[in-house]
Amino acid sequence: MARGFFFTFEGIDGCGKSTQLTRVAERLRESGTACVVTREPGGAPISEKIRELLISPCSSQMRPETELLLYLSARAQHVREVVKPAIDRGETVLCDRFEQATFAYQGHGRGLDIDVLRDVNAFATGGISPDITFVFDIPVTLSQERLNQIGKGKDRMESAGVQFFERVRKGYLEAAEKNPQKIKLLDGARDMDVLTGEILGVIEQYCS
Amino acid sequence: MARGFFFTFEGIDGCGKSTQLTRVAERLRESGTACVVTREPGGAPISEKIRELLISPCSSQMRPETELLLYLSARAQHVREVVKPAIDRGETVLCDRFEQATFAYQGHGRGLDIDVLRDVNAFATGGISPDITFVFDIPVTLSQERLNQIGKGKDRMESAGVQFFERVRKGYLEAAEKNPQKIKLLDGARDMDVLTGEILGVIEQYCS
Repeated sequence: MARGFFFTFEGIDGCGKSTQLTRVAERLRESGTACVVTREPGGAPISEKIRELLISPCSSQMRPETELLLYLSARAQHVREVVKPAIDRGETVLCDRFEQATFAYQGHGRGLDIDVLRDVNAFATGGISPDITFVFDIPVTLSQERLNQIGKGKDRMESAGVQFFERVRKGYLEAAEKNPQKIKLLDGARDMDVLTGEILGVIEQYCS
Repeated sequence: MARGFFFTFEGIDGCGKSTQLTRVAERLRESGTACVVTREPGGAPISEKIRELLISPCSSQMRPETELLLYLSARAQHVREVVKPAIDRGETVLCDRFEQATFAYQGHGRGLDIDVLRDVNAFATGGISPDITFVFDIPVTLSQERLNQIGKGKDRMESAGVQFFERVRKGYLEAAEKNPQKIKLLDGARDMDVLTGEILGVIEQYCS
């Protein structure tokens, strides 16, 4: 049996990645593709517990190194319990955030050394890497507007600062520029249907 | 102001490390030494939350890589929030388990690559390493007997297996053999007062 494919959806908050992931999964399933929809941090029971820790109020005291290792511990479990088994079963895995979030948020955002991140991430994933990563790019101001609409903007932006999200966005843009074969940059401000079609086109081409 | 010293107490369950740590701290304080007594995993609020996750029932599904990264995330926080500040204040830090537990349990016990552990541990600690590590060695059968006395033996030994603890013990012994300057091997089956005196002797000699 052929192995399944692994696609990840990335970008700053409000970029539309989760909406697109849901739409793409729906369309793939309609066309008869077995899909596993999952997310990070989380996706497995232990990883969801780690997620709770990451977003708990006490996490304001959390050091960047602690945060990184927690994200990677959640990933180590998620990859081995959910992602790899699904790929091995020949299913298509669609994951909301994965390793590019680590490089963008903990590397570019928090300032941790990217080479070290790569090494520790490789240990966490055991070498499992996405076939294609979709990065949804939007300006930080639009991210803030979209989060405000769901009542989340003020908290997020004030706690980390607009400059933090500017660095994260830049991290995603640089990653896409360096590795355009694997990391597809999409304009997250575009029409949702057009975007869904574009993603499905890339997936279809890759899988055929 | 001179920096403080950092001493860690290690060994398999029931080896007497925690009892000795308490006794040594008491004696040091009596002689006017400011001591911080702490433990791993834990020692800081976030790290104690991570500890809860590590010992929770759902942790039976936990993969070795997940476990390792959780221990190290707890350490990253503990070192930065508690250990390093205390050392910088000139205080003596006494810690119940630290990096040698990682090498013994996750390396020798779980079979993870020791070189990788060293690298990720160095990232987690930021280079903070104990001045002296005391390893309390006891046979696994004695560990089991002592745990049985407090009603903990059966659970622990049955869940991981006696062979696991034999490998962990061997890991500690090898570490002490390789680095006798930094890792002091003590016979955990000996008289408690004699042991306390021996530890205090080593500390006194090191600090003078």
